[in-house]
Amino acid sequence: MSSSKIPVIEIFGPTIQGEGMVIGRKTMFVRTAGCDFRCVWCDSAFTWDGSEKDNIRLLTPSEIFHELKQLGNQNFNHVTISGGNPALIGKPMMEFIELLHEHDIKVGLETQGSRWQDWFRSVDDLTISPKPPSSGMNTDFDVLDSIIENLAGKRISLKVVVFNDEDFDYARMVHKRYDAIDFYLSVGNKDPYESGDISSRLLMSLDWLWSKVMEDPEMNGVRALPQLHALVWANKRGV
Amino acid sequence: MSSSKIPVIEIFGPTIQGEGMVIGRKTMFVRTAGCDFRCVWCDSAFTWDGSEKDNIRLLTPSEIFHELKQLGNQNFNHVTISGGNPALIGKPMMEFIELLHEHDIKVGLETQGSRWQDWFRSVDDLTISPKPPSSGMNTDFDVLDSIIENLAGKRISLKVVVFNDEDFDYARMVHKRYDAIDFYLSVGNKDPYESGDISSRLLMSLDWLWSKVMEDPEMNGVRALPQLHALVWANKRGV
Ligand code: SF4
Ligand code: SF4
Repeated sequence: MSSSKIPVIEIFGPTIQGEGMVIGRKTMFVRTAGCDFRCVWCDSAFTWDGSEKDNIRLLTPSEIFHELKQLGNQNFNHVTISGGNPALIGKPMMEFIELLHEHDIKVGLETQGSRWQDWFRSVDDLTISPKPPSSGMNTDFDVLDSIIENLAGKRISLKVVVFNDEDFDYARMVHKRYDAIDFYLSVGNKDPYESGDISSRLLMSLDWLWSKVMEDPEMNGVRALPQLHALVWANKRGV
Repeated sequence: MSSSKIPVIEIFGPTIQGEGMVIGRKTMFVRTAGCDFRCVWCDSAFTWDGSEKDNIRLLTPSEIFHELKQLGNQNFNHVTISGGNPALIGKPMMEFIELLHEHDIKVGLETQGSRWQDWFRSVDDLTISPKPPSSGMNTDFDVLDSIIENLAGKRISLKVVVFNDEDFDYARMVHKRYDAIDFYLSVGNKDPYESGDISSRLLMSLDWLWSKVMEDPEMNGVRALPQLHALVWANKRGV
């Protein structure tokens, strides 16, 4: 891969950010290809499992920017970079973020916290989302500690997706470890490929998660949220 | 009314804040009685229409605090004060907020922006929610201007409930007038007394609101959110 290009698998928007620290905000999405994890319930497995490898394009920051402007015109001032794991990408990502900032566009980005990049400090809305036990992945807390330490003084958020009690315990432990950082719980979508109206299933999961939070004195300050886009648009891609 | 007491119509929790700037956060609710408005779709008309006047109690700040502790125990660090219009209450509200802060409890409060109170500056999560045309009420922009001016330098939010196109235009105008302030749109609940599963109706309204936001370049930075509690718990009271 050329060092000045980013492997992109999807560009879409304007749409609405459905979860986490900027829930409800209009944004464009840029989804990068490739992930160092293999979560069993990954809802973006097409970014790394080869099933859509023909859709992966190596694009320069300015090519991505022009595509965003073509799609979104004057209708956005925020871009969400998602994956896969965008933290696999180094210098070209830094250039892309700088380009967006030059155009007064804010940048949101989510990564699982397995790798550090210096450009983390330039992301406006940075979410670190360590993966709970149900993912089948392990958290390297040495790496995570150093990432959180490197970001001291910057307002970021932590987000943990919760599918079951064990995930909730993991979330509590992570929240305790980094108790000064805004903490979000997100309801896991047990079947990201189910089509049709999945809202009642998701709302029941949120009801369950809220009950857990309400009765837990160690979770007083967290925010427990659904994936609104999944509620409104089911599991549709590209919105 | 004694000047050291607050007219309270409901105290409940722990529950989850379902809307606005702290959406998803665990909180207790204190609902005050009395409102200077008469919005046609008011979902808290029982606070002012006399239908529950026997439930109104005049309580001192410390009486309210003890009731909150009895209900919520160690299970909360945030209290939402709602109405009615809590801005009708002066000094006792200031004392109540100070008492909560002494116990490391954060305070959220929502008011329509028809009256100023000095204690607005002490509220941690303050939402000013001017009422759109569908409410049947008029906004006094001289009063609202001075409230917003008095709060300069403090991070607050504006929230407008939207039922129709005219409300959306009103929201755009308010957002433009106070463009430095975090702006939230909330989907109106057309029938706050309907029971049963109202989630599909509310999600369709959110879909409509999101479409409006997505195609409007003047609404790039707003946050458009549902009332999550209504999605999860329908129109139940006391949760
Ligand atoms: S870290 Fe994210 S993109 Fe990677 S496998 Fe897990 S869920 Fe999928
Ligand atoms: S301002 Fe609020 S409480 Fe008062 S009538 Fe309107 S909706 Fe009801």
